[in-house]
Amino acid sequence: MERIGFIGLGIMGKPMAQNLLKAGYPLTVYNRSDGPIKELVDAGAAAAASPQAVAANADVVVTIVTDTPDVQQVLLGENGVIHTVAPDAVVIDMSTISPTATREIASVIQEKGASMLDAPVSGGEGGAIAGTLSIMVGGEEAVFNQCLPIFETLGKNIVHVGQSGAGQLTKLCNQIAVAVTNLAMSEALVFGAKAGLDLKKMQYAIQGGAAGSWQLSNLAPRVLERDFAPGFMVKLQQKDLRLVLQEADRLKLSLPATSLVHHLFHALESQGAGDEGTQALVRVLEQLAGVEVKQTG
Amino acid sequence: MERIGFIGLGIMGKPMAQNLLKAGYPLTVYNRSDGPIKELVDAGAAAAASPQAVAANADVVVTIVTDTPDVQQVLLGENGVIHTVAPDAVVIDMSTISPTATREIASVIQEKGASMLDAPVSGGEGGAIAGTLSIMVGGEEAVFNQCLPIFETLGKNIVHVGQSGAGQLTKLCNQIAVAVTNLAMSEALVFGAKAGLDLKKMQYAIQGGAAGSWQLSNLAPRVLERDFAPGFMVKLQQKDLRLVLQEADRLKLSLPATSLVHHLFHALESQGAGDEGTQALVRVLEQLAGVEVKQTG
Repeated sequence: MERIGFIGLGIMGKPMAQNLLKAGYPLTVYNRSDGPIKELVDAGAAAAASPQAVAANADVVVTIVTDTPDVQQVLLGENGVIHTVAPDAVVIDMSTISPTATREIASVIQEKGASMLDAPVSGGEGGAIAGTLSIMVGGEEAVFNQCLPIFETLGKNIVHVGQSGAGQLTKLCNQIAVAVTNLAMSEALVFGAKAGLDLKKMQYAIQGGAAGSWQLSNLAPRVLERDFAPGFMVKLQQKDLRLVLQEADRLKLSLPATSLVHHLFHALESQGAGDEGTQALVRVLEQLAGVEVKQTG
Repeated sequence: MERIGFIGLGIMGKPMAQNLLKAGYPLTVYNRSDGPIKELVDAGAAAAASPQAVAANADVVVTIVTDTPDVQQVLLGENGVIHTVAPDAVVIDMSTISPTATREIASVIQEKGASMLDAPVSGGEGGAIAGTLSIMVGGEEAVFNQCLPIFETLGKNIVHVGQSGAGQLTKLCNQIAVAVTNLAMSEALVFGAKAGLDLKKMQYAIQGGAAGSWQLSNLAPRVLERDFAPGFMVKLQQKDLRLVLQEADRLKLSLPATSLVHHLFHALESQGAGDEGTQALVRVLEQLAGVEVKQTG
């Protein structure tokens, strides 16, 4: 089995690394803070002192960190993967970052003779723990096929969507649909609340038909319980929408609803709710309407 | 079995009336134009010359016509149901109309000793033919229970959501979610097209997760085939969004995304596309972006 180097042991990365260990892959890990490193070492991983040290002993390097500059730092920065990556190694970036930056990073890595796949994920911490993530992969198909067993250890719905950057672009399509569908749910809920409906009955009546969505089925019940704990944090949704709108700016593309939801989320951030779950979006509409969305029955 | 009077043999009403006939209900029908009356009479229904004549021989009167004034006309107008409705009869309005007007009509009908349920449907012509409509019902629960066998002949997901008007309000929540989720899908598609993605792979990669919706699974494939035939017509979606926004105006409720999608649909209407399916919404964004959403693979 390939020796895997794993960089980024956050909410998503830690359980993913654990799943790779469980599947028997020899694993070397790196993380900015020490806490999660110890957990992985206790479970059988080796620890490395830098991304460069990770890459020195790896056939495949997986990165999953927060944003574009973080990926640039661990791959191309001082002590970065680029300084030791083997000529036939594969770098798999599973972060959600700029598609344009991804293509630039991939070409630098290719100059070293190595390959890069962009493979952002969807499915949240739950999917990372259960190994049921959706994974959208951009890059050479042969490299994708070579890495498929690794992806299958981490996820379920694994699709090679195109060349370098296509995984990130697909993830941005995903985030557009996620964010605007969340707004669809939020407006339906606040309308129902203001009109005095029994919201649980309303949701039950509409979710099975043309109004149905993952957002409505999964987030509306949390709103009705006034549970705003994060499945996916507002600030991370905003980071992804910023990537969408930067790319849309580059493409000269008008996305009126995506822009709208990004700005409505700003209101939450300005109120200190960036660490709450995206279902908190409904609270912005509640403030505009002077009503609270909750179960009354 | 109750003698049913049925008013409105349009795209939805005709197959619904046929299902009631097949289930064995004695049926008297009325429609503005003669064509569909003959079909129902050939299948065993009686024809009446006016709504008033329908109600004279019915225990239950079902109406399914286009808009609020049409319902007011057939129920309360000259030759309307109100003039002959029996004191213990039930009027079931399955049109999608103003919740406020519904409550006013219901109180006039109650003054005659009869009852009224508002029971708008979702599921389109296909659901009407198959008898699998979603039905959201407002009105007295005892009357709902009495009419349940009739609803079960017409639909599958049948929910009593509250008092008079609650069925219509729930349908409007449904239409908010339908329209804004359509916009979510449209923006994801136009972003993917402009970015040069293989759109079929993109859709496949995202539809199973948090981005998933009925709109994305059912309408995106039609867009990729450039099939804009109506499942649900733009002009009828607009009629329903007008009801939503009138009610929002009454409630002083801000629905930014619903307003946005209503105005984007205006662009289609101004181009003569009111009879096309709601998936034509993507064409407005295509015009803004100078790109066409289609399968390239």
